[in-house]
Amino acid sequence: MNRLTKLLSIQKPIIQAGMIWCSPWQLAAAVSNHGGLGIIGAGSMYPEVLDEHIAKCKAATSKPFGVNLPLLYPDIAKHIDIIIKHKVPVVITSAGNPKTWTAKLKAEGIIVIHVVSSSKFALKSEAAGVDAIVAEGFEAGGHNGREETTTLTLIPKVVESVKIPVIAAGGIATGKAMLAAMVLGADGVQIGSRFVVATESSAHASFKTSVLETDEGGTSLTLKEVTPVRLIKNEFFNQLQEAYSQNATPEELTNILGRGRAKKGMFEGDLKEGELEIGQVASMINEVKPAAEIMDEILHEFFEVKRQLNQGLFDF
Amino acid sequence: MNRLTKLLSIQKPIIQAGMIWCSPWQLAAAVSNHGGLGIIGAGSMYPEVLDEHIAKCKAATSKPFGVNLPLLYPDIAKHIDIIIKHKVPVVITSAGNPKTWTAKLKAEGIIVIHVVSSSKFALKSEAAGVDAIVAEGFEAGGHNGREETTTLTLIPKVVESVKIPVIAAGGIATGKAMLAAMVLGADGVQIGSRFVVATESSAHASFKTSVLETDEGGTSLTLKEVTPVRLIKNEFFNQLQEAYSQNATPEELTNILGRGRAKKGMFEGDLKEGELEIGQVASMINEVKPAAEIMDEILHEFFEVKRQLNQGLFDF
Repeated sequence: MNRLTKLLSIQKPIIQAGMIWCSPWQLAAAVSNHGGLGIIGAGSMYPEVLDEHIAKCKAATSKPFGVNLPLLYPDIAKHIDIIIKHKVPVVITSAGNPKTWTAKLKAEGIIVIHVVSSSKFALKSEAAGVDAIVAEGFEAGGHNGREETTTLTLIPKVVESVKIPVIAAGGIATGKAMLAAMVLGADGVQIGSRFVVATESSAHASFKTSVLETDEGGTSLTLKEVTPVRLIKNEFFNQLQEAYSQNATPEELTNILGRGRAKKGMFEGDLKEGELEIGQVASMINEVKPAAEIMDEILHEFFEVKRQLNQGLFDF
Repeated sequence: MNRLTKLLSIQKPIIQAGMIWCSPWQLAAAVSNHGGLGIIGAGSMYPEVLDEHIAKCKAATSKPFGVNLPLLYPDIAKHIDIIIKHKVPVVITSAGNPKTWTAKLKAEGIIVIHVVSSSKFALKSEAAGVDAIVAEGFEAGGHNGREETTTLTLIPKVVESVKIPVIAAGGIATGKAMLAAMVLGADGVQIGSRFVVATESSAHASFKTSVLETDEGGTSLTLKEVTPVRLIKNEFFNQLQEAYSQNATPEELTNILGRGRAKKGMFEGDLKEGELEIGQVASMINEVKPAAEIMDEILHEFFEVKRQLNQGLFDF
């Protein structure tokens, strides 16, 4: 047990990221049932859909689970009400001011974690009363910070800045990377990309295949003038590059993005026109398997490398 | 001893990066005398200057040392001749094709290491016959790869791809980061930014102060259309941003860059108009001290965290 597993009442300090279009109750329940913290991704769910996913997750696991809540979601108040109604144990908020909802959620006994990409915002989140921080580096998939600080440089700085537990995110898909993150001072890890290709993920089969095929350099952080997002360099990305080369304004970029691109790509499997959010670490991901097996594989490697370290195999 | 320290005949797997304008014989000799591999940065030296620095380094240490050689240097053949004349033990080549000079150097008994930012180029370098690889992530200072792969995602992929030793670079300034890099499979580390502020570095005192004051988000990778370089966001950087906002062509950007900017900033201390190359990890660097003390501090933390890990302090 460490202070993070104690806070969350879980056995293994692995948090599954609540990724839009990929994180249904099936994935969250599988991760929680296996001793981690499963997270439902509310960012792609209407209130009634979220309500259903929470109800089904509660039915499928007696273990703690959580909901990821991007605070810029238009119907956010309805989401909050549903979360409170169901007494969801943990909420991970992102993309917004942690001051707005933390007190209300905590008053209901809900553990609140906020996602940041800098130690400055880690400090602000701590001051807003959150229980833990997810610190996410530049290599992470999906929406991301503007300062481009990588996980390796971000984690020690955040750990040094705040007193509450820090969960490392971005670039972590293996036991080695998990151990590296903990050596840097993290209390646990949040893993996204690797769970996109879990059997229980609701990512479209074509998107999963696309993730498996993504090699080094296959993703890019783009749309920095709108909302920075890391995605696979597909035809939609090329359209953006073309627009950039013609000096497109943020408004024009927003128009190209349009609505529903992420759903189209990640949920409906349109690999050309869709937005395919994934981390750099997709280059290390080669197999679709159940979430429990993914966790076992990561933890097996974690303990194996730790054992090698203890045995002096890394000595010089 | 591990396979890297064995290859290089050094005691500690710390390679000091051969940074332009900051890596004179004094720094290289100090690092080598303390058991690491000190490197003279030839990229900012005329042939006769390099000749002098190598001669003085040889006089100042009986330990192995090296020269960093950017292969795009116009007088490269003269540099090679000087290196061979002096029988410099190690050459680290970068920014060019490792096929061109590796055979010639190795025929003289010189150990050749090549710097890459992808596993694809690591494989090409291995095929070209180099003895080891420096794999450098997106967070590193100075010139950098176009694919923006971070150290955390790059190292395991390169380690998996090649059979020769891999030296991790980018974002490493502490013992924790060094241990993390070795957990990821690296055989050693190359450290740049931290040695920029070594007492023996030839960086201008004002540039050193500027590095100490650089906080998270204080650097950016820019000039991607010309030669990607990570530098401090100073007035020169703002001029580039202004040019970008006006859709400047690569030619216009090259004109703004002009000649001698790095010397002006890093060696002459012009913090406004100069190019100030440094890594993201500058945010963790707070003190000017002798190279030997920097190394001691890093290794002390490395062994301390390793000990904590062995004692179960990271268990859960």
